[in-house]
Amino acid sequence: MASIQLSGLAVPGIGVARLLMSCDDRRGVIAAVTTAVADTGGNVLDADQHADPEDGRFSMRLVFEGVKDRAKLEGILSSMNIGYRVRWEGSLPRVAILCSKQTHCVADLLWRASIGELPAEVTRVVSNHSDAQGLAESFGFGFDVFPVTAETKLAQEGKIIELLEEDGVELVVLARYMQVVSPEFIERFGGRVINIHHSFLPAFAGARPYHRAFDRGVKLIGATAHYVTQELDEGPIIAQQTAHVSHRDSVEDMIRKGRDLERVVLASAVRMHLEDRVLVDGCRTVVFE
Amino acid sequence: MASIQLSGLAVPGIGVARLLMSCDDRRGVIAAVTTAVADTGGNVLDADQHADPEDGRFSMRLVFEGVKDRAKLEGILSSMNIGYRVRWEGSLPRVAILCSKQTHCVADLLWRASIGELPAEVTRVVSNHSDAQGLAESFGFGFDVFPVTAETKLAQEGKIIELLEEDGVELVVLARYMQVVSPEFIERFGGRVINIHHSFLPAFAGARPYHRAFDRGVKLIGATAHYVTQELDEGPIIAQQTAHVSHRDSVEDMIRKGRDLERVVLASAVRMHLEDRVLVDGCRTVVFE
Amino acid sequence: MASIQLSGLAVPGIGVARLLMSCDDRRGVIAAVTTAVADTGGNVLDADQHADPEDGRFSMRLVFEGVKDRAKLEGILSSMNIGYRVRWEGSLPRVAILCSKQTHCVADLLWRASIGELPAEVTRVVSNHSDAQGLAESFGFGFDVFPVTAETKLAQEGKIIELLEEDGVELVVLARYMQVVSPEFIERFGGRVINIHHSFLPAFAGARPYHRAFDRGVKLIGATAHYVTQELDEGPIIAQQTAHVSHRDSVEDMIRKGRDLERVVLASAVRMHLEDRVLVDGCRTVVFE
Amino acid sequence: MASIQLSGLAVPGIGVARLLMSCDDRRGVIAAVTTAVADTGGNVLDADQHADPEDGRFSMRLVFEGVKDRAKLEGILSSMNIGYRVRWEGSLPRVAILCSKQTHCVADLLWRASIGELPAEVTRVVSNHSDAQGLAESFGFGFDVFPVTAETKLAQEGKIIELLEEDGVELVVLARYMQVVSPEFIERFGGRVINIHHSFLPAFAGARPYHRAFDRGVKLIGATAHYVTQELDEGPIIAQQTAHVSHRDSVEDMIRKGRDLERVVLASAVRMHLEDRVLVDGCRTVVFE
Repeated sequence: MASIQLSGLAVPGIGVARLLMSCDDRRGVIAAVTTAVADTGGNVLDADQHADPEDGRFSMRLVFEGVKDRAKLEGILSSMNIGYRVRWEGSLPRVAILCSKQTHCVADLLWRASIGELPAEVTRVVSNHSDAQGLAESFGFGFDVFPVTAETKLAQEGKIIELLEEDGVELVVLARYMQVVSPEFIERFGGRVINIHHSFLPAFAGARPYHRAFDRGVKLIGATAHYVTQELDEGPIIAQQTAHVSHRDSVEDMIRKGRDLERVVLASAVRMHLEDRVLVDGCRTVVFE
Repeated sequence: MASIQLSGLAVPGIGVARLLMSCDDRRGVIAAVTTAVADTGGNVLDADQHADPEDGRFSMRLVFEGVKDRAKLEGILSSMNIGYRVRWEGSLPRVAILCSKQTHCVADLLWRASIGELPAEVTRVVSNHSDAQGLAESFGFGFDVFPVTAETKLAQEGKIIELLEEDGVELVVLARYMQVVSPEFIERFGGRVINIHHSFLPAFAGARPYHRAFDRGVKLIGATAHYVTQELDEGPIIAQQTAHVSHRDSVEDMIRKGRDLERVVLASAVRMHLEDRVLVDGCRTVVFE
Repeated sequence: MASIQLSGLAVPGIGVARLLMSCDDRRGVIAAVTTAVADTGGNVLDADQHADPEDGRFSMRLVFEGVKDRAKLEGILSSMNIGYRVRWEGSLPRVAILCSKQTHCVADLLWRASIGELPAEVTRVVSNHSDAQGLAESFGFGFDVFPVTAETKLAQEGKIIELLEEDGVELVVLARYMQVVSPEFIERFGGRVINIHHSFLPAFAGARPYHRAFDRGVKLIGATAHYVTQELDEGPIIAQQTAHVSHRDSVEDMIRKGRDLERVVLASAVRMHLEDRVLVDGCRTVVFE
Repeated sequence: MASIQLSGLAVPGIGVARLLMSCDDRRGVIAAVTTAVADTGGNVLDADQHADPEDGRFSMRLVFEGVKDRAKLEGILSSMNIGYRVRWEGSLPRVAILCSKQTHCVADLLWRASIGELPAEVTRVVSNHSDAQGLAESFGFGFDVFPVTAETKLAQEGKIIELLEEDGVELVVLARYMQVVSPEFIERFGGRVINIHHSFLPAFAGARPYHRAFDRGVKLIGATAHYVTQELDEGPIIAQQTAHVSHRDSVEDMIRKGRDLERVVLASAVRMHLEDRVLVDGCRTVVFE
């Protein structure tokens, strides 16, 4: 993993950096890394580790300040045979939001960005419909419409990829974007595509989950934020929540209640990602909350 | 539905009765039934209704006291072309509990029964293992073991049915009973068999749900109480709950946390049933909480 | 209570009306009211009742359609010695929102109004600061600033009252309005003023609840929506929710997490009120969900 | 803090130990401690840290295995000017449970102990009433009754202290023990006394919280587990939970629902303490979950 620039928002204070790393578990790895940080002038502000007894993987997130010799620290880390990423203090990570007709998730993310709650720079909002245009523009964000038909889908997606790469986005958020993105799209953004699905996965993967939930007579609805992979609704889950429903709730009530779940679950997952709290380990995630 | 006797526990006070009814929705049905109650001397203590806009079914639960002419009220109800059940004040409903090796659900139900929280008379505990024997006996409940092999399964189940019918049980609770009961069993007890499944159905129906939940990397576990039907884990759901898990939770942690969910969800569903709060409408339930 | 006009949004369908009533409990009251509805051509779509064993009060909410003789129905109700309100189908209830510097609650309510989720017509947003101005205007709502000093407070409030009365608002929502409103204000709007307090009342009533929650070391934060009365933070509670916090959460984290609670709790309380689901009984509420 | 013996239950595997430490935050402390563990042959299995930006305290919990030279490791730790406690593998911590008439908390703890879920050896149950006697004995635990009057209170408490000290208990659990323990009692057990209070503190501290919650008309009830200090219901909070209530819930319903909260919150807090996950920092706790 290459070093990328860090949000000054999420971790206040000049000179703060974040390290996210994983490796096969071995004796002394915490000691080695924290010694390297201390030896290069750093002081640890926050730390979290996880050693998975199942697959023997070790993960760590370190937040530290005061490192004087960044090159030396990265040199030590590079020599350690670990996967790692350091986000040094600097500019905000760049994020693009894709949406369709429903605005609850995009409205929520843009409002959070506007009050400084989301540690990111939203570069633009892209949609296959114009429903969110007024909203995006009122918050001062750019908005691009790429209408999609069966014939134009791939070509339009190609244009979107181009635009997002020009923007240098680190993360793509599918905020109820009702198009299945292509394998190429996922690959281009290195798996850094987060989707919100409107059910508690693995239940009701696929289309119309609230209708199917109603038909099954469940007493809970849910929402799931996950990284997008080649298998639809099968990617590593970052966050999930449920809410109670009763016989009084029609499908429309479920959809309404679901909106409140979806926007919170998606915003939480995006925040976790942007604060470098999420590591993917196969089809599971480690989320250092 | 025939009249059955009512718990004095769940609805305190002499002379209290409960009516549970459903019919195709039609003008004036609440007026007709509540007028009948008033005309026979009754006073409504609690009432709840539901008119389902999807299938046009109307449901009502009435708790009332003071009816002087029970036969007259039942006569009126019988003439109305509705499905109904009245539980007149009297003895507690009789309930049997079936369990296997795990004791968390049965221990919880027996403790609730022992302090008078469960509005039922537990007639006996039946198991294919002896693990819960000491527990049942310490609370003063009878305990019968019917060990099961592939060969003896049906014959043993036949003996259990016989025993439960002798006891006159109204409800059978499968408190983590790890045997699939036969179609005949379900039919004999008229659908009044409640099971607890250790997942948020429809996800992870079938065996080893916690292991599969762990493998899928979900951030929630759940429990579901439902009526047992011929299709495994497909019966109408009465109650569901979920709890958060994280990457720190092993399968064993999920199983431990799940125990706390399962016993509460099962006890809640059993209580709802015993207080005549549940109506089945196809594969969905109306639960008048 | 006088009849007021009903939202076509919250209860779909032409000719739908809602009755909210309460009286001292007495034999036959459900029968009398539902018979009156049936006799005037009405069909009950939804009904809920509550008889309080403590104070002997009976409450009922009825949703019905098809009443042909509205005057006759109201005549019967008037003669029954009950408190009641009928909201006949028609225009949306008019609502004003007051806010200060923080925008999370007002942004949420306006977004809900804009997608038709809030069954009300928001007449205007009023604030003592201009922070929410761009937001309100982007959604197409009017915005008025009334800056307040210790000297001008009462005079400015007088102007706000005047404006709101001109608008004919039925409900005033204090969406994190950081001014204590005067007794006269509350009286003018007949108790129909809903406030959101950023703690689980009665804990941390008054100023700076998150700071005090942090100092006390609680593991939960909360939000409470209530009707405003003469006693600060003592009014009847409509809705409350809590969320978990840990030692990792600073005061700022609590404030951030609290925003998500506050907006949902407030929106839920406002919706309950607008759908005629809330009855005040002393310092308690009956909420027919 | 002196070293004490460790449960083999909570941390499976031979040779596993747990370190809980805190100190004023300083550069290199994680590196120093983890290096000491690695240098004495240890491998870290689980680690968690917290640096409090408010008061500048650093806390860490380490679980490790394989340390060959225990004396050397403790020597290094002793020289570091930190507060710490190591729990080496070995016998279970000894715990006493005090209760009164209500059995839900004690029944739950004893059942958990009986299935091996509670990483402790329960030495005995002590009560001022005999209600829990049958229960305790059925699980095979000793039971002592010390009836209390205003006159005998202190003398009886003295006998209880004596008994518990003979047993060598490390933790005293007040499982709805309806007596205020004396300052001496708290001092004797070094603050290692956990109480469950049946409200979401700081709301409804003191007597009859459910009655007062009902009178206030709250829409939530709660339970709080905390360390006992000289100020009643003011000790550092370990765990809290809430549950929804509505106008349908009487005081008795609140008490019933509250039982389910109380037992789970208390068991969770006791487990956290026994697994060395809790550090007290003034009136706040750090809980490494």
